[in-house]
Amino acid sequence: MQEKALNSPGFEIDPDLVITLTHGDPIMFEPFWKEVGHNATVTISGWEKMSYYACDPDDICWFLEPDFANEVLRLHRIVNNAATNGCHIIPGAGSTQLIHATLHALASIEARRHPVNVVSAAPYYSMYSDINSLKSALYHWAGDAATFKGDDNFIEIVCSPNNPDGMIRHAVLSNNAGRRVHDMAYYWPHYTPMRGPADHDIMLFTMSKATGHAGTRIGWALVKDTDVAREMVNYITLNTNGVSRDSQVRAARILKVISDGYEFPNSNSAGQFFHIGRHLLADRWRRLRQAMEVLGKFSLPQFSTEFCEFFKEHAQTYPGFAWLRSEDESINDCGDFFKSINVQIRNGRLFGAGPNYVRISLMGSDAYFDGFIKRITSVG
Amino acid sequence: MQEKALNSPGFEIDPDLVITLTHGDPIMFEPFWKEVGHNATVTISGWEKMSYYACDPDDICWFLEPDFANEVLRLHRIVNNAATNGCHIIPGAGSTQLIHATLHALASIEARRHPVNVVSAAPYYSMYSDINSLKSALYHWAGDAATFKGDDNFIEIVCSPNNPDGMIRHAVLSNNAGRRVHDMAYYWPHYTPMRGPADHDIMLFTMSKATGHAGTRIGWALVKDTDVAREMVNYITLNTNGVSRDSQVRAARILKVISDGYEFPNSNSAGQFFHIGRHLLADRWRRLRQAMEVLGKFSLPQFSTEFCEFFKEHAQTYPGFAWLRSEDESINDCGDFFKSINVQIRNGRLFGAGPNYVRISLMGSDAYFDGFIKRITSVG
Repeated sequence: MQEKALNSPGFEIDPDLVITLTHGDPIMFEPFWKEVGHNATVTISGWEKMSYYACDPDDICWFLEPDFANEVLRLHRIVNNAATNGCHIIPGAGSTQLIHATLHALASIEARRHPVNVVSAAPYYSMYSDINSLKSALYHWAGDAATFKGDDNFIEIVCSPNNPDGMIRHAVLSNNAGRRVHDMAYYWPHYTPMRGPADHDIMLFTMSKATGHAGTRIGWALVKDTDVAREMVNYITLNTNGVSRDSQVRAARILKVISDGYEFPNSNSAGQFFHIGRHLLADRWRRLRQAMEVLGKFSLPQFSTEFCEFFKEHAQTYPGFAWLRSEDESINDCGDFFKSINVQIRNGRLFGAGPNYVRISLMGSDAYFDGFIKRITSVG
Repeated sequence: MQEKALNSPGFEIDPDLVITLTHGDPIMFEPFWKEVGHNATVTISGWEKMSYYACDPDDICWFLEPDFANEVLRLHRIVNNAATNGCHIIPGAGSTQLIHATLHALASIEARRHPVNVVSAAPYYSMYSDINSLKSALYHWAGDAATFKGDDNFIEIVCSPNNPDGMIRHAVLSNNAGRRVHDMAYYWPHYTPMRGPADHDIMLFTMSKATGHAGTRIGWALVKDTDVAREMVNYITLNTNGVSRDSQVRAARILKVISDGYEFPNSNSAGQFFHIGRHLLADRWRRLRQAMEVLGKFSLPQFSTEFCEFFKEHAQTYPGFAWLRSEDESINDCGDFFKSINVQIRNGRLFGAGPNYVRISLMGSDAYFDGFIKRITSVG
């Protein structure tokens, strides 16, 4: 395993060792959860959670664990990042399944021509364009929202803060036409200043980016319209016949630890999650900016300081990804450069941008990140 | 809650109380798992299983928990119900997601006309016909395999033992054309005699019916062809970006308890799962046959005794569902009859049969089953 080699004591960077920064695998938060200890442990007896039904079978979302719903609402109340009043909460197998459920719902319940065009302003999260591979007859990926020339037969995905570039986003297509989905995976205080509660018709969140628990495959949607909620539940019923109750129970426990950390500050020995998460990300961004300055080939996005209503102070933006632009005319394709130094990145083309951009994940293990910084510095 | 009322001490059957026997919610196995106690308990620390990857990222199925794979192989070896040699194991969010993954894979990797016709011999599991609601451009439900008049552009789903009628099934369409998926959810010793290891290209199993853990949303596919396995993994990657690692860990623990029960007979206080499961189902079938004889309106399937290679004796068939046929000419629609006595069933029409058939679940709680038998007996 590459990671083992990187972690070995006395390890000197072997230039042949590939450093993978392609995926947003949020391993950087693992040490926090180790420090928390048993407070974050989930225990499920063999006879518990056996039924398909997590609540009353007649509830709109029959597979929603009540404890999970309560902890989702509680954390949103504490962070004040989303208006939850009157919203349906729909769990999904990560925000990936929720994207499909949302597109299915919006394309199904209105009298639309199929396939409906799905768009998002470039640079957009590369996963959105993957929806075509699932070959839905209801919707298909139609690319960059900014250059979309169709009529009102569209759904715009608005990712804010945006993956890959960390920018705060608003819908670019006219408000009176089409429909909107807001992917809010990164609207948490460790990544970006809180500017008050987001209040959109459909908002998607995910454990993966909120707490670092990607392997639980749990996200949630906050949905205002009951018909849309019903049709999203219908999709998840047909697709996976519900969502893992075990994972929802675990997610509830993890969210509870974070909320307890703010409501009962001495509830665990690890401290407060968003404070520590911001500290970790700030440190990585500081080292990344330094290393990139030494290298002198790429520029990084600049973010203005904003008042964060959660930290109650002016705060910086520290996205989970860095969106690098080539500033060196000798580099035609950034992908080639990173390949030459044995670093796997995601090419800008996948995000609807040019090959002069790349996305690197800052959420991986210390071993990978440290190895990356050392390699960049040794090249520069 | 209806169930609470049925469980109340001194409860007399209120004829207005609706008894729900529509879904195969396998609650009947809950008392076994209560008896097992802490051996079946799963514990996951907050820092475990955070990554998307459950094994080496370069493995074909990057989201497969090794412990889950090992326990799946071990149980199949002990029960000897499936040839696993050289098979890829692919976990899914229940067999529901695996059906979609399989159809997607088979329709994608060959030069086929789209949509490919998906068929299954009537009476067929009603879920198969639901695939149309997901509006795939690759495949669509084309009904009863026995009356299918198309060419070789088809995929036949073979459910054996069959849901709803418990019969052992073989493909009905010619072997040289099309492709086959074998849904083996009920090929376990508590439901049917073991006739040796099934050996098909694609076989689907699910925790829900094997152990009673429906809420974990974990099933698994055994797949011989590497290209098919790769494309199924691709579907699950695009659809849900993996499968809950927590649920796989829990499923591994549950399967281990069952296997331990046979390899180390005194390993838990509850006894051996398939023996107890068969005993419970045999008891329900005995009471159901008695009650139906008193009622005198419906016939039940008859199964011949077969030698069970697991129990090493001649054994009966005890399906998880009863498939009732009306024998009373005054009943045009069985659904109406059960509605009149406040019992929710699934109408035969949903399974490609006539309204003179209904399916009732025998896997629910004691309270529901007892209430049903009492009500049937009081009507008869």
